[in-house]
Amino acid sequence: MPKYKLLPNPSVRRLPLYLTLAQQADTEGVSLISATVLAEALDLDAIQVRKDIAITGIVGKPKLGYRVKDLITAIENFLNWNNEHKAIVVGAGNLGSALLGYQGFKNHGLHFVAAFDIDETIINKSIHDIPIFHIYTLQSFIKSYPDVAIAVLAVPPFAAQSCAELLEKAGIKSIWNFTTVRLKVSGDITVQNEDLLSGYALLSACMRTRKENHQK
Amino acid sequence: MPKYKLLPNPSVRRLPLYLTLAQQADTEGVSLISATVLAEALDLDAIQVRKDIAITGIVGKPKLGYRVKDLITAIENFLNWNNEHKAIVVGAGNLGSALLGYQGFKNHGLHFVAAFDIDETIINKSIHDIPIFHIYTLQSFIKSYPDVAIAVLAVPPFAAQSCAELLEKAGIKSIWNFTTVRLKVSGDITVQNEDLLSGYALLSACMRTRKENHQK
Repeated sequence: MPKYKLLPNPSVRRLPLYLTLAQQADTEGVSLISATVLAEALDLDAIQVRKDIAITGIVGKPKLGYRVKDLITAIENFLNWNNEHKAIVVGAGNLGSALLGYQGFKNHGLHFVAAFDIDETIINKSIHDIPIFHIYTLQSFIKSYPDVAIAVLAVPPFAAQSCAELLEKAGIKSIWNFTTVRLKVSGDITVQNEDLLSGYALLSACMRTRKENHQK
Repeated sequence: MPKYKLLPNPSVRRLPLYLTLAQQADTEGVSLISATVLAEALDLDAIQVRKDIAITGIVGKPKLGYRVKDLITAIENFLNWNNEHKAIVVGAGNLGSALLGYQGFKNHGLHFVAAFDIDETIINKSIHDIPIFHIYTLQSFIKSYPDVAIAVLAVPPFAAQSCAELLEKAGIKSIWNFTTVRLKVSGDITVQNEDLLSGYALLSACMRTRKENHQK
């Protein structure tokens, strides 16, 4: 999917940080915010901040910065977060349940409509007011709700690939993959891999380096 | 902290993926695994895989690859995941609870000993068998358990900075920050930021690009 490579991923990844700060500034009644202020708050370079924000099409005013409300609108428009994205969660275990209830997603248009699992003790119950259905009903569910855009995959590794195939068959085009498995799906499906262990690896490596430096 | 910049972060981030595959191969009785096989499974370049794995100090044999057991040991040693890291969770809401129960961490030496919150309805209860205490008892807890190495921060944004200061006072040296706030702490504390919204931003931007390409 070379067309997706046109977007500078690290810049896109940082947009929610600017959005959060802009929303906070807005709540506090601040009307202008500069790249320098954003850069300081996030421990980034101001030039980088300006470059990141430029991808949304907004340009700040010299010496003044961005209008806070315009910045919010620009980022939300760029990410399409001002529109609702219907989503499902596949795998309603610990992680899946947490994602169902994560307020940060709700605030940015990600709206969970159902979760799917194979655990009979939770099927037909609900978590955070979202109903849990058997995974076997996934395909017919998506037929009834064709506007479901995103599937969050939070199943154990051994079930990841088969669930991905089920999602592909059901016509889901975007999978947010919280498993450690790299999914094999057809090219027109977007997979965003989210690996919680990678952050832990980074932290562990830093701790090791720190320890070694202290011992020197 | 320039000394931490010596480690190639993207490579470190990918180590858990190689580890997972190697462990899977080991379970299946496979004794050798090549960089090419790892690269294919993860949709990476084999040269990149070799480079990543080289930081752990292990070198594969030409045409054969890595001994699976040696690869597992090398990555675990490098990340110090074969030793137990005691950790606490600050903020036992949805996300905090999920992290407490996430099996992936347990399998790699991250051992939660307690969680802290201000919600009286959960204090002195337990989640996934881990006791929840009042945040005010944090400092005295760490005094009694000085080997707690990591604090996972999963509080609402408005509480993030004050909790970070509390952790710093208590002597915690590594904070795994799941809030959207960039924490201001002294230089000898390692902060690993984990932003769930950044993955959602990337997915949203891809969905938008895909839609635009379809409309063309």
